[in-house]
Amino acid sequence: MSKTIAFRHTLPFGRLPILAVSPVVEAGRWPAKAFAGEVIPFSATVFREGHDALGVELLLTDPTGKELTCRMVAGSSGSDKWHAEVQLNLIGDYTFKIRAFADEYETWHHNASVKIAVGIDEDLMLLEGQVLFANAAAEKTRTKANAKLLNELAQKLADNSRSAKARMADAEAPEVVKAVSAQPIRSLITLSETFTVKTERELAGVGAWYEFFPRSEGAKFDQKSKTWTSGNFKTAAKRLPAVAAMGFNVLYLPPIHPVGFAHRKGPNNTLIAGPQDPGSPWAIGSEAGGHDAIHPELGTEKDFAAFVKSANALGIAVALDLALQASPDHPWVKTNPEWFTTRADGTIAYAENPPKKYQDIYPVNFDNDPEGIHFEVLRIMRLWIGRGVKIFRVDNPHTKPVAFWEWLIGEVNAEFPEVVFLAEAFTRPAMMHALGKAGFQQSYTYYTWRNSKAELESYLTELSKQSADFFRPNLWVSTPDILTEYLQFGGPAAHKIRAAIAAMAGASWGMYAGYELCESVARPGAEEHIDSEKFEFRPRDWQAADKSGRSIAPYITKLNNIRKSHPAVRQLRNLEIHHTEDSAILAFSKHLSGQHTANGKADTILVIANVDPHAVRETTVHLNLEKLGLDSNARFAVSDLITGETYEWSASNYVRLDAFLEPVHILHIGKVL
Amino acid sequence: MSKTIAFRHTLPFGRLPILAVSPVVEAGRWPAKAFAGEVIPFSATVFREGHDALGVELLLTDPTGKELTCRMVAGSSGSDKWHAEVQLNLIGDYTFKIRAFADEYETWHHNASVKIAVGIDEDLMLLEGQVLFANAAAEKTRTKANAKLLNELAQKLADNSRSAKARMADAEAPEVVKAVSAQPIRSLITLSETFTVKTERELAGVGAWYEFFPRSEGAKFDQKSKTWTSGNFKTAAKRLPAVAAMGFNVLYLPPIHPVGFAHRKGPNNTLIAGPQDPGSPWAIGSEAGGHDAIHPELGTEKDFAAFVKSANALGIAVALDLALQASPDHPWVKTNPEWFTTRADGTIAYAENPPKKYQDIYPVNFDNDPEGIHFEVLRIMRLWIGRGVKIFRVDNPHTKPVAFWEWLIGEVNAEFPEVVFLAEAFTRPAMMHALGKAGFQQSYTYYTWRNSKAELESYLTELSKQSADFFRPNLWVSTPDILTEYLQFGGPAAHKIRAAIAAMAGASWGMYAGYELCESVARPGAEEHIDSEKFEFRPRDWQAADKSGRSIAPYITKLNNIRKSHPAVRQLRNLEIHHTEDSAILAFSKHLSGQHTANGKADTILVIANVDPHAVRETTVHLNLEKLGLDSNARFAVSDLITGETYEWSASNYVRLDAFLEPVHILHIGKVL
Repeated sequence: MSKTIAFRHTLPFGRLPILAVSPVVEAGRWPAKAFAGEVIPFSATVFREGHDALGVELLLTDPTGKELTCRMVAGSSGSDKWHAEVQLNLIGDYTFKIRAFADEYETWHHNASVKIAVGIDEDLMLLEGQVLFANAAAEKTRTKANAKLLNELAQKLADNSRSAKARMADAEAPEVVKAVSAQPIRSLITLSETFTVKTERELAGVGAWYEFFPRSEGAKFDQKSKTWTSGNFKTAAKRLPAVAAMGFNVLYLPPIHPVGFAHRKGPNNTLIAGPQDPGSPWAIGSEAGGHDAIHPELGTEKDFAAFVKSANALGIAVALDLALQASPDHPWVKTNPEWFTTRADGTIAYAENPPKKYQDIYPVNFDNDPEGIHFEVLRIMRLWIGRGVKIFRVDNPHTKPVAFWEWLIGEVNAEFPEVVFLAEAFTRPAMMHALGKAGFQQSYTYYTWRNSKAELESYLTELSKQSADFFRPNLWVSTPDILTEYLQFGGPAAHKIRAAIAAMAGASWGMYAGYELCESVARPGAEEHIDSEKFEFRPRDWQAADKSGRSIAPYITKLNNIRKSHPAVRQLRNLEIHHTEDSAILAFSKHLSGQHTANGKADTILVIANVDPHAVRETTVHLNLEKLGLDSNARFAVSDLITGETYEWSASNYVRLDAFLEPVHILHIGKVL
Repeated sequence: MSKTIAFRHTLPFGRLPILAVSPVVEAGRWPAKAFAGEVIPFSATVFREGHDALGVELLLTDPTGKELTCRMVAGSSGSDKWHAEVQLNLIGDYTFKIRAFADEYETWHHNASVKIAVGIDEDLMLLEGQVLFANAAAEKTRTKANAKLLNELAQKLADNSRSAKARMADAEAPEVVKAVSAQPIRSLITLSETFTVKTERELAGVGAWYEFFPRSEGAKFDQKSKTWTSGNFKTAAKRLPAVAAMGFNVLYLPPIHPVGFAHRKGPNNTLIAGPQDPGSPWAIGSEAGGHDAIHPELGTEKDFAAFVKSANALGIAVALDLALQASPDHPWVKTNPEWFTTRADGTIAYAENPPKKYQDIYPVNFDNDPEGIHFEVLRIMRLWIGRGVKIFRVDNPHTKPVAFWEWLIGEVNAEFPEVVFLAEAFTRPAMMHALGKAGFQQSYTYYTWRNSKAELESYLTELSKQSADFFRPNLWVSTPDILTEYLQFGGPAAHKIRAAIAAMAGASWGMYAGYELCESVARPGAEEHIDSEKFEFRPRDWQAADKSGRSIAPYITKLNNIRKSHPAVRQLRNLEIHHTEDSAILAFSKHLSGQHTANGKADTILVIANVDPHAVRETTVHLNLEKLGLDSNARFAVSDLITGETYEWSASNYVRLDAFLEPVHILHIGKVL
């Protein structure tokens, strides 16, 4: 409808302004992230001069090249924001752009209907309608059926024998509205730049992770000889069915490589290890080999393959640790000293935080021989991928160059798109976020230290909204390094609360073995376990624990079963906070519309958690029902997926949560009454 | 110090991550804005793996090509933000990038000083120092003096006859610190992309604007003949000295073109005009001419030139209105009907908001003949620029395509960089901001409707911080279209409060004639003046008003004099809100460090305003002294620039503000006691 402007230079603004396109990470410097099945909120700020009507479309191209056009809907009044939600199901790069256009039907319809209703300019408006529909029918891209309908409408509008109101009604007929909404009458078409959403396998975003030390599972101490026999892949495999039964689908193993002897650490991180101390698995490398080798006491390559096979048969993927550091006994120290830092006196630098020295660890230097060390790590990655490992938990990635990770993950994923990297970085936000942008599929978070309602509201909102385009959280409730005051003193209630929130809020969550036993004795003065498994064998008597009833494994199992049955929980960005009147009762929802579920029914989970593990709390929960796809005055059935109890709920609801009985309601919204 | 990595492809992250560079508008899609003399806060998020020391520099190239290196300082702990403030004094494009580097001196110094203090690794650390300084001395870019000093230091460190502590002291000598801070020992050098800050003339950002209708100044009504004689440029020029005396330096005139007769509006926007009604100046065009012509009753081109000359001689720049719309009598209607919209019945479309009709106005159509209308407007701009006009207040720019403005302002400023455009857009935020990005040097704001303390705190912060890179506010206290309830009912106190806040908070502010007389009678039911000057002659008896004492012109004069004497007020981004305990007492400061003032002394203004024009209020004002360049326990003299009173202030101060006496303290910080 409009002519093309051919001036001397093109300018950033197109005919219709399109700004703030989302999801876009730093203007497209990095792709936004999604996982297969994730519902992505697309949006843009689009507006125009004057009062005429505007239409906005999302033009999406899937990884196979198939194009999808999705009409966007206007957001809150005055925001000029337009929205569309699309579920991305294929793995690979989706590209998208925003198309803005003047909506000629809507503009004409608004003006004509207002005027004809009051008898002003009737002939003129109908005449303009005729011209509009006849011209639109002649557009080359219009379908035949659509063109025919518009031509007929133009003729009807010209029929002076009928009243203006009757003819206006023709232009508002459902089939006309359908036709111009399927193929709008567009002018002033303007396109945004093209952006990318990198869509990765579901496990990149969704998973229930469990961590155990294989050397502990089946380790035995012989009282007579006072000697330890290490657990190994064969004995550890016996624990796999229980892990699967609890509902976990990723098992992460601390490093399984030979452990160095030089300056080996003893129990509780002491400087002198005895002959029976197995050392930290993170002090990698001995005469038995380095990052490509398996600790002889754990077994052979064949044993490892059998372990992976057993896990897989139970629906569990095995994740290995990638800790790029070496014991002084690591083969690299002899073969490639250039991958470490040589000091002015010719010695190799160990880790230090002056005046503290960590002589059991040589940090890798990435700048002496960049190509050498980069390709050596790539070689190791390929080796383990070849041995069936598709998930890597990367130890302390923030102590290595971000650019190294960006290169390594890019190289690995180009060859093996199914490989997932989890960043174990506990550091400042800028670095945490940068590692996500550099390519890490998942990241550990500050979740362990966010225990109050206010902290959780703010942090869960940040994770599910502000940072979700580049930072995918895995909410671990515990690690071998972290035992917070909250868990030390909160007992089983605290363990249930933290697990329930992590499992429901996080599309991914994780737990370190022993959590189900509420192991919570700390090394005095530290937020760490006493007698840390990092430095000792720690076999656990699982059967005795199960019998005693002190294990919360049944509760954990329920949580993972809810995750399996409820696709809404397996999304990240759909988390919404709801208001409660108590300072310790946290309420949030996960809602997935029926458009995006396999059975076509909406799935909505409400979590109402008393985060005070020492008290009974009661409050009124005020739900934002619009966020749950419900009318503001709806009444509906909810069933508690933990206790099986059912209630009738509406926008405001009384709850009472006794931390000593059940501290958390996990409610599924059923029938609307 | 490090080798270059030559991999198969380059990646977004450099060796050291550099993110969130500021000021940058949408990743550099548009340049950030500055005005000559503006102090710009540059920042970036820069960090590295591990614990070694980092240095960050701003590399700035001024419009003449001269390069400036500015060391950035670390911001609040954990933020990884680095900051530098630079005053941009030249007009044109500054370009900048951020340089991050590993600071080898700082890393060595930290480790060596900690260890040598406790007697660990003394020889090794000194040996490493020798190697570091000897290598650094050999760097090609190092100055001879600097290299000599470092070589000597290396030799001193090698002198085993002296104690380790003594040698360490040599490495910490002031001249060494000076040398390595002037020329750091850098490795892992990483550069950001290059960004632009477009620096415009001071008037683009700083000014005191006054608006009057030249036809009113000197207009006379003859009681006998019942006829009006219009004011003109000669009579209006008589008002110029008073405008200058009040301290204004820009005078904005509503359109001075011939006014159309067709459907001319009468008093109070009525549909029928009498023969004595002058019509709205915005209904542009008659047989006497269009946008290139001058209304015959205002005078000739020569008269206009004389008016401009008189204004300039008083230090006042004349700003014209650019209202791209036409009366049905405009010459374009005959010569170029393609610049309007022709309806299906062959008539030209007038403005409508169905069912309302505005038949006195034909909106311009920018899509029928884009080149034609674009270059016609450019021709008109060149014409008026040739007639000495360098400032244009653009009427309703949000009803024309944003891309048109981006083109027009780009073309005009390429030829005439001194030309300033002020956007009179009162619309939604997305459009307001887009016009700023498109090139408008200044914009009207929502200031008139932000009257409470909470509203002002939030809005002044937004204007001075969040949007300052692309949206430069001009805080008008009144316009011919706006008379808020606050002013209607607040009397002289309200007028003083609003003017004081605007003049101090805004680097630019403005006032429409009559404000100094506190004209505040509204058309019933409207937030507009009764008997609006838009449709009538409105001569004012300035002398009588001055004599009566009811004019607040002396107060306005004081405000503009404070602006002249205090460079801190003529900045935009330095506004900081301070806490007070009263819900109606607003406190903000403008601080400029001595580095950026002509006399080398810091300039600090504190505004403490009672925004309740009907009450006496008292409170404690809590100053954030760090933002004022003062120690937190400082005591200092302040003088009230309105009353001349002096006080001794510190971080917390009692104030009592009586709206009926002086509602606002404007305090200058003097001697620190």
